[in-house]
Amino acid sequence: MAYPDSLKRLVDVLCRFPGVGPKTAQRLAFYLLGITREDVVAIARAMVEAKDKLGYCLICGSLAEVEQCPYCSDPRREQLLLCVVQEARDVLVLERTGQFKGLYHVLHGALSPLDGIGPEELKLDQLVRRVKEKEVQEVIIATNPNVEGDATAGYLARLLKPLSIRVTRIAFGLPVGGDIEYADDLTLSRALDGRRDM
Amino acid sequence: MAYPDSLKRLVDVLCRFPGVGPKTAQRLAFYLLGITREDVVAIARAMVEAKDKLGYCLICGSLAEVEQCPYCSDPRREQLLLCVVQEARDVLVLERTGQFKGLYHVLHGALSPLDGIGPEELKLDQLVRRVKEKEVQEVIIATNPNVEGDATAGYLARLLKPLSIRVTRIAFGLPVGGDIEYADDLTLSRALDGRRDM
Repeated sequence: MAYPDSLKRLVDVLCRFPGVGPKTAQRLAFYLLGITREDVVAIARAMVEAKDKLGYCLICGSLAEVEQCPYCSDPRREQLLLCVVQEARDVLVLERTGQFKGLYHVLHGALSPLDGIGPEELKLDQLVRRVKEKEVQEVIIATNPNVEGDATAGYLARLLKPLSIRVTRIAFGLPVGGDIEYADDLTLSRALDGRRDM
Repeated sequence: MAYPDSLKRLVDVLCRFPGVGPKTAQRLAFYLLGITREDVVAIARAMVEAKDKLGYCLICGSLAEVEQCPYCSDPRREQLLLCVVQEARDVLVLERTGQFKGLYHVLHGALSPLDGIGPEELKLDQLVRRVKEKEVQEVIIATNPNVEGDATAGYLARLLKPLSIRVTRIAFGLPVGGDIEYADDLTLSRALDGRRDM
């Protein structure tokens, strides 16, 4: 295949994206060659800017461009209700339902002994400290409905129950074995509704 | 949806890619947020560099990083056999078959009166000049097997026949109605084999 070098490099880096194979990468590359230089620069800049600007909220671990995310700094949200999720992207999916009005806590992972991820690797100390300091009344666990998410939910329940608060988990309206990230809004709304004490 | 601004901008620009909707764009964006800054910069740079370095061969119109593409500057290729394609990317697909050893001519489009693309918009003068000057013996037409490609092939045949050369079109082994870009190598090889005089 006689790809010019710079085209080959471009196709190679585009192949790194999840779900993008060589054919798709070539299609994306030719799209880039067909638009104006300004538009290519705009895409490239948006990628680097997002990477540079976005960090995690110091309180809850959600994606934020400043030290405190829009949820933690919004006094209208229910301050005594926390929803625990594995990843920052899960916050965006839950927000899309428009149904949850509390605050979040992002673990940035799930328990997975095989991958060497134990309780120390997750933001659990911060969660316990928040619950105690803010006198949180309920923690809704929204970890993924798979092995790691289940293990994490169980661990969290044992960790939080002694604090005499309500600990719930969103209902298995979610298709089991999947990822929260891909759930549709209605399923996710129902799962929030059907949460059970644990 | 409470996307941080820079994430929203990133998702928006990624949505411009062909075949990428909001969900895929979000997945790609989170992939970018999860890798190192160096890797993000590498992707961004590859995009802009490819755009800056790649131009079209002054002779045949193929993608090239220098004034003359690797095909036109390779004396081992059959100099008297030309293959006419619509787009530069079609050259790469034909090269992948490894079967064609002649030179290319890229039209950079196809006749499409509804879109205001007439013969003047395509590289037809250059083609006729090349055929005359280099005493080309055969022109293989590999335009897409659809309305615009057919019209262009017919026009080319009428234009080139008076020059007393062989004018052929690759066979309709290709699935009709599709694009050359997506043909598999074997189908494309057979289509080259089964070319007919026109």
